[in-house]
Amino acid sequence: KIQLLRESTDEPESHILCDLNEPLVDHTEGQLFLNDTFKIIMEEVLCKGTDIKHKVCEWKEPKELALLLDLELRATGEPQHRLLQRVQDVAKYSIKTSHPRFMNQQFGGVDYHALAGRFLTEALNTNLYTYEVAPVFVLMEAEVLRGLRQLVGWTEGDGLFCPGGSASNMYAMNIARYQHFPEVKSQGLCGLPRLNIFTSSDSHYSVKKGAAFLGIGTDNVIIVEVDEGGRMIPDDLDEKITLAKSQGAVPFFVSCTSGTTVRGAFDPLDLIADVCEKHKLWMHVDAAWGGSVLFSKQHSHLLKGVYRANSVSWNPHKMLVAGLQCSALLLQDTTDLLRKCHSANATYLFQQDKFYDLNLDVGDKSVQCSRKVDCLKLWLMWKAVGSIGFAERVDKAFNQYIPQPEFVNVCFWFIPPSMRGKEGMADYQDRLAKVAPVIKERMMKQGTMMVGYQPLGNKVNFFRMVVFSPLLTQKDMDFFLDEIERLGKDL
Amino acid sequence: KIQLLRESTDEPESHILCDLNEPLVDHTEGQLFLNDTFKIIMEEVLCKGTDIKHKVCEWKEPKELALLLDLELRATGEPQHRLLQRVQDVAKYSIKTSHPRFMNQQFGGVDYHALAGRFLTEALNTNLYTYEVAPVFVLMEAEVLRGLRQLVGWTEGDGLFCPGGSASNMYAMNIARYQHFPEVKSQGLCGLPRLNIFTSSDSHYSVKKGAAFLGIGTDNVIIVEVDEGGRMIPDDLDEKITLAKSQGAVPFFVSCTSGTTVRGAFDPLDLIADVCEKHKLWMHVDAAWGGSVLFSKQHSHLLKGVYRANSVSWNPHKMLVAGLQCSALLLQDTTDLLRKCHSANATYLFQQDKFYDLNLDVGDKSVQCSRKVDCLKLWLMWKAVGSIGFAERVDKAFNQYIPQPEFVNVCFWFIPPSMRGKEGMADYQDRLAKVAPVIKERMMKQGTMMVGYQPLGNKVNFFRMVVFSPLLTQKDMDFFLDEIERLGKDL
Repeated sequence: KIQLLRESTDEPESHILCDLNEPLVDHTEGQLFLNDTFKIIMEEVLCKGTDIKHKVCEWKEPKELALLLDLELRATGEPQHRLLQRVQDVAKYSIKTSHPRFMNQQFGGVDYHALAGRFLTEALNTNLYTYEVAPVFVLMEAEVLRGLRQLVGWTEGDGLFCPGGSASNMYAMNIARYQHFPEVKSQGLCGLPRLNIFTSSDSHYSVKKGAAFLGIGTDNVIIVEVDEGGRMIPDDLDEKITLAKSQGAVPFFVSCTSGTTVRGAFDPLDLIADVCEKHKLWMHVDAAWGGSVLFSKQHSHLLKGVYRANSVSWNPHKMLVAGLQCSALLLQDTTDLLRKCHSANATYLFQQDKFYDLNLDVGDKSVQCSRKVDCLKLWLMWKAVGSIGFAERVDKAFNQYIPQPEFVNVCFWFIPPSMRGKEGMADYQDRLAKVAPVIKERMMKQGTMMVGYQPLGNKVNFFRMVVFSPLLTQKDMDFFLDEIERLGKDL
Repeated sequence: KIQLLRESTDEPESHILCDLNEPLVDHTEGQLFLNDTFKIIMEEVLCKGTDIKHKVCEWKEPKELALLLDLELRATGEPQHRLLQRVQDVAKYSIKTSHPRFMNQQFGGVDYHALAGRFLTEALNTNLYTYEVAPVFVLMEAEVLRGLRQLVGWTEGDGLFCPGGSASNMYAMNIARYQHFPEVKSQGLCGLPRLNIFTSSDSHYSVKKGAAFLGIGTDNVIIVEVDEGGRMIPDDLDEKITLAKSQGAVPFFVSCTSGTTVRGAFDPLDLIADVCEKHKLWMHVDAAWGGSVLFSKQHSHLLKGVYRANSVSWNPHKMLVAGLQCSALLLQDTTDLLRKCHSANATYLFQQDKFYDLNLDVGDKSVQCSRKVDCLKLWLMWKAVGSIGFAERVDKAFNQYIPQPEFVNVCFWFIPPSMRGKEGMADYQDRLAKVAPVIKERMMKQGTMMVGYQPLGNKVNFFRMVVFSPLLTQKDMDFFLDEIERLGKDL
């Protein structure tokens, strides 16, 4: 006998518009469409899109592109052949981020095992909050996090995959705040003293974004100076913490960086750990970019001391080419801080009378409710190449371009012919600043390659190539230099 | 001439381990693997996984499953055939959320056009922060958001896809706070009066999670009473706002719900808008679950007054079966509040000397840096079925199960034979509370179907079926009732 909670309503009588005996989705037609889409993906994105004979980018002005794509959403649907054409168009006009000549950002390249894991993730379409709906992935995520923690140097701990490095950093900040002031969860910051966060001037902007979002405020992110290589200066950190305390603020969180976004610098973690211990502050390492170096015996010294941190953010979607998004937050904590800090105990998901171990319901560790599965792509790729394979990729990236680099960010100015030997000119820096934007525009419009540029401090616009894709060869490196020369020779 | 920012380093000389003239990824082998994985996905996940002759779930105890999957990550890689077996195993032991008999949560079912869009998104692997790397998706996201806003009743406005409804709700809260107190961004909450948020007792737990995360505190989420149908009582809201003010708090945000998680109730938005206007509060509508009703002429009255809100969260990954994750935050604001609130102006991404319109670089509207593309799956599906097709799906869901439902959450108790007619017994409620967990365990272990249960207020454990998948037919509905009867007949 079924007893409804609500026996009737006062709604007007419904009109049945469709046959309830038939599903609204045609599996045969749908699977045919998926099959055809897969062929287009193979051809356009994975074959042509990684072939140097084809462009990285089919540049169109926004207005022209909007017309070409016919984006408007209408009342009636379209036939399959028209939809396949749309799939083709989306592929055609999108940037080929797997192309060997895409070095614009830290997410270039492709790994087919990771991509297979991503397709499988999408098809399985489940939610990483309970063992009930994600039995495989609850266990798999724990294993992948264990593997990453082991590289950090922790035999125990906790963690979670988050929607990107900014989120991972914010989580760390929130957990640190909770550890210092557990009452913030219920009472908020009102009535508490001013909290201070410390990070270097070269750190990622997500530290400030996180401070704003968490109600701490960007002014309460105290900027620590860096040395000429872009590494945080521990003595300056120590002094600034002491100063903040003397001004009535409560320092609680230091965010170090292993692999800064622009220059790829590694903060001296061991020395910073000493300062954090002295002042009893939470030490976080934003290793979103540089974390993957831990796979390499040869280069892991760059993160020496990382095991002394309280938390680490690490994005395998960057150097390991796992695919967006794959960002792990790792914690040394074994006291269930993550769950305590974030839990809301929703009874509709985390029923206490379930028939299995409730610790397997990891959803309450997150501030998300629905949470995508981000572990499968990394797990499958790891199974495919092994830790040794990852080490090989890291080592290759380091050896790709210049002798003895600190990391794989290659930052440089292109000095056009007309400016060579004229460093003494009054407007030299102003003119140099205008070079990179022009070359960038030309390379985009011709579609031959993509590389980023930016100013930094008193350094005017310079190029930054991020050299790590496992698809790269020495030939691509040579091409890059020749192509910049070609694009800028008249400047 | 190339001038490096850092000419040399003090690192030890590198040892070249691999041939720099060869990529580390074998395209032919990789594409073959992807092709084989696609076949497994088609067979196991999409054919068998949606076929009622096969199980929804292949239940294993966690320890047994961990052994079967051999999750351990090792130093060396594995051959392709072993990896394909792993793909097969992951598919086999995962929950078939597309199966017609998965009604456990609001993300069941499959749409092949959306899935094609998701595969394409994964293959293109780009980042929705600049026009430079995501030209197609910057324009497409704007168009999809425009389409959704139009259904809300706004001809202008702003918005963003966020990693889930909880994030969308948090964003809304942060933007509302910024509008009331712009100085919070830089100075934080320290020194400000206590802020108050109002939401109903049946609202989603993300409101409290958000308040904790943003430093507002869960105690500052004031719970408004609901009527017998689970709808917020506007008079109680009005009284509680007045009371909060009299106690020195500053109310700033009301989070209404259109489609509550458990009962599927719709708060009376028009009446709540009156209260919000009276007190000058930000009105947010969490329509993560119920927003899709706006496609239906017949049922959109459930959200009457939604156009008066300041912000709306809406998850097409729920009722529209777009696939996880697809959550839109929609704003009525036309003053660029979203960007002002969240921007950090990172010079390495959002260079001011770019050669195209900088408004196309939408990344600074987000608190994420890397942001997945969530619009393509919805856009392609919308193109495939049209607004009329979505309306048809919504109408069908309403008509699937019971006459004149308020929404598609079907909440009920199963009264086992031994308890029928014994409502007067002293331990009746205690015994009834134990029925659903036992039936749930049995259905999981036999793998025949999946449906959730939970208590709510003084109501003991009851089942909640969410009936909306376009794959469902009347036969599945009949099966559900018969199966619950079968599983519980000895209780």
